[in-house]
Amino acid sequence: MPTVRVTRRAHFCSAHRLYRQDWSDEQNREVFGDCSNPNWHGHNYILDVTVEGPVDPGTGFVMDLKALKYAMKERVVDEVDHRNLNLEVSWLEGMMPSTENVAVAIWNRIAEVMPDGVRLHRVFLQETANNSAEYLGRDGE
Amino acid sequence: MPTVRVTRRAHFCSAHRLYRQDWSDEQNREVFGDCSNPNWHGHNYILDVTVEGPVDPGTGFVMDLKALKYAMKERVVDEVDHRNLNLEVSWLEGMMPSTENVAVAIWNRIAEVMPDGVRLHRVFLQETANNSAEYLGRDGE
Amino acid sequence: MPTVRVTRRAHFCSAHRLYRQDWSDEQNREVFGDCSNPNWHGHNYILDVTVEGPVDPGTGFVMDLKALKYAMKERVVDEVDHRNLNLEVSWLEGMMPSTENVAVAIWNRIAEVMPDGVRLHRVFLQETANNSAEYLGRDGE
Amino acid sequence: MPTVRVTRRAHFCSAHRLYRQDWSDEQNREVFGDCSNPNWHGHNYILDVTVEGPVDPGTGFVMDLKALKYAMKERVVDEVDHRNLNLEVSWLEGMMPSTENVAVAIWNRIAEVMPDGVRLHRVFLQETANNSAEYLGRDGE
Amino acid sequence: MPTVRVTRRAHFCSAHRLYRQDWSDEQNREVFGDCSNPNWHGHNYILDVTVEGPVDPGTGFVMDLKALKYAMKERVVDEVDHRNLNLEVSWLEGMMPSTENVAVAIWNRIAEVMPDGVRLHRVFLQETANNSAEYLGRDGE
Amino acid sequence: MPTVRVTRRAHFCSAHRLYRQDWSDEQNREVFGDCSNPNWHGHNYILDVTVEGPVDPGTGFVMDLKALKYAMKERVVDEVDHRNLNLEVSWLEGMMPSTENVAVAIWNRIAEVMPDGVRLHRVFLQETANNSAEYLGRDGE
Repeated sequence: MPTVRVTRRAHFCSAHRLYRQDWSDEQNREVFGDCSNPNWHGHNYILDVTVEGPVDPGTGFVMDLKALKYAMKERVVDEVDHRNLNLEVSWLEGMMPSTENVAVAIWNRIAEVMPDGVRLHRVFLQETANNSAEYLGRDGE
Repeated sequence: MPTVRVTRRAHFCSAHRLYRQDWSDEQNREVFGDCSNPNWHGHNYILDVTVEGPVDPGTGFVMDLKALKYAMKERVVDEVDHRNLNLEVSWLEGMMPSTENVAVAIWNRIAEVMPDGVRLHRVFLQETANNSAEYLGRDGE
Repeated sequence: MPTVRVTRRAHFCSAHRLYRQDWSDEQNREVFGDCSNPNWHGHNYILDVTVEGPVDPGTGFVMDLKALKYAMKERVVDEVDHRNLNLEVSWLEGMMPSTENVAVAIWNRIAEVMPDGVRLHRVFLQETANNSAEYLGRDGE
Repeated sequence: MPTVRVTRRAHFCSAHRLYRQDWSDEQNREVFGDCSNPNWHGHNYILDVTVEGPVDPGTGFVMDLKALKYAMKERVVDEVDHRNLNLEVSWLEGMMPSTENVAVAIWNRIAEVMPDGVRLHRVFLQETANNSAEYLGRDGE
Repeated sequence: MPTVRVTRRAHFCSAHRLYRQDWSDEQNREVFGDCSNPNWHGHNYILDVTVEGPVDPGTGFVMDLKALKYAMKERVVDEVDHRNLNLEVSWLEGMMPSTENVAVAIWNRIAEVMPDGVRLHRVFLQETANNSAEYLGRDGE
Repeated sequence: MPTVRVTRRAHFCSAHRLYRQDWSDEQNREVFGDCSNPNWHGHNYILDVTVEGPVDPGTGFVMDLKALKYAMKERVVDEVDHRNLNLEVSWLEGMMPSTENVAVAIWNRIAEVMPDGVRLHRVFLQETANNSAEYLGRDGE
């Protein structure tokens, strides 16, 4: 039975800021540049979630993409879209909202609701046309 | 000698429908939603075929992409473009034309004509801007 | 007061066929080529609706784009998405579903619900990445 | 001598919020929806500036696009990129930062530095993949 | 009878150089920058040709897009694709191959073969994702 | 600690030609087709460089993308943009400038400046919308 990956794409628009309260403004600006701007900035994020599993012979599906779409909406998009990633998202609290960290946090949100027999394979998060991050669930070195 | 992957993209426009004759209309609608519409719907599919192999020192090529383009045209695009995936494609017969199944079937069509020394690595099939499937030739669990 | 144009984009996936019952199959194939395939084919259509008007000084809006989005959904997308343009859309009945004709028909659907003080400026309909039509409400020669 | 239009594209990422201090939170939410979120949200804006004029027979240029690129950077992008459109941009002060209003304000910024013999034709501003505004310098009704 | 515009897109890849033999290398570099590089550079051009006319009630077409596609291939793409715009294209001879000039020259190539009852409306030529030119057939001031 | 991949995109426009001096013009044309055109042709290349490593808990970064951007600019883009890949790039000398070979050469340029604790994962190079190559640093068979 073939193992196939399917990907669902979603979009959200958020404000954020990269800075550390325990650093001076100079340190923040040196490391994070314009991204540390105290009055925030924002992005149109593109989110791709890829899952992997055997194709169900009855439906031709690895997973019902409507269910994946709903999980992405319910557990991610509705919580971050038109929100401030530093201030308003409980599952990002205390975390630097870099593309890397947000991708990992989204992985954790989606992994909790994966149906049996389907593996979450990849969370890809594009911040701008030139910058993106992806997490495949691998840890440690 | 470096091992490189090269990808060729093609496009096709097809009609299809997701439904099972052994299910009631209600069951079909419940599982497949609008995709079970009896009068069909269709998509502009994007197909990426990726092959992998050593770079030929004489040509700088993993594979002549004109040959890959021709194989994709001859064995896939000419057979599905402006066609009905449920009714008119011999190598999809008896198969639910989900993105997953069509990707696997395209893999099989292309794999048959891979030249020596080149491995088919990936078939990626995008059905809409938000939905896609990819097959890497892995089976079983 | 500045006059500005705003555009809202939507997507739909439909099946269609270009053919005339009063022509022979040969004539249909000669004029419409693969588009006359009796078992249908389909597309991922992209629809842009542009409206024009003065900017409301209170809201900064030419028109509430949520209202335009809703009009496009209600009067167009819900009626054509995952449908057959030849068989299932009352306002396309008896019409060749060419990109041109569908664009004009969508104009008429949207024009009926334009709020006061806002002009419908343009309906743009993309059938494939290479083919599109646009109607600006101009008639005659 | 042919009259040609040339377009230069730029990108910027900003935070903003649509709200009126003289309205209640309920009114703001009713009219502006999620866009009124008090903790801001943001976008990757795409800006296209189009100028029109005769082609210089010596250079083949309507205008040196490096000069247009520089004007867009100096007068617009450097002032809005990674900034808050409500709080940090002097030429947007006291203005609802809707796509419409920002497009008009950018027109005014660019119009001031147009070289002789070249007309500013169009400022196009895309806020999301589905929403955009364009201003052609036309006023009144 | 509605007047509609239809657009056909094509692609070509060419080398070119912007320079004047009657100028010094310094002058060329000052005006044309990197574009004057003596060993050439090149682009993936995107060409959109838009025609306008009444919709034929029998076919639903403003113009057979296959005929437009063929005209664009025969009269433009086959002559410039994988060619050097300065050296190998008879109808660009003696002309600075700026985006502006190439767009006007393409207009002239296509205008010669427009069928009766259809007006050439616009030639749009994109040189890079950030730079483009369009010609609407207007001359003089 | 999660291991994440981050990708930075850059663009460059170059001329090139695929041909071998030790082959006849006929052989070159047979193998390389239009790509062997003696007067060159060119492309808008898209370059994606992906690096992989643990997320720094202090910054939320795998690597400072400004540093990656600078490395890509300094070591690749500044050397190939608006240049001839056959004639003007020291690190491509004596090499067929196929997409495969250029991708491998870019890998080598970037690998030399990878900071400690970060692995170069992938160099992806798109030559046209339909053709691309990627190298993951794997050699031999």
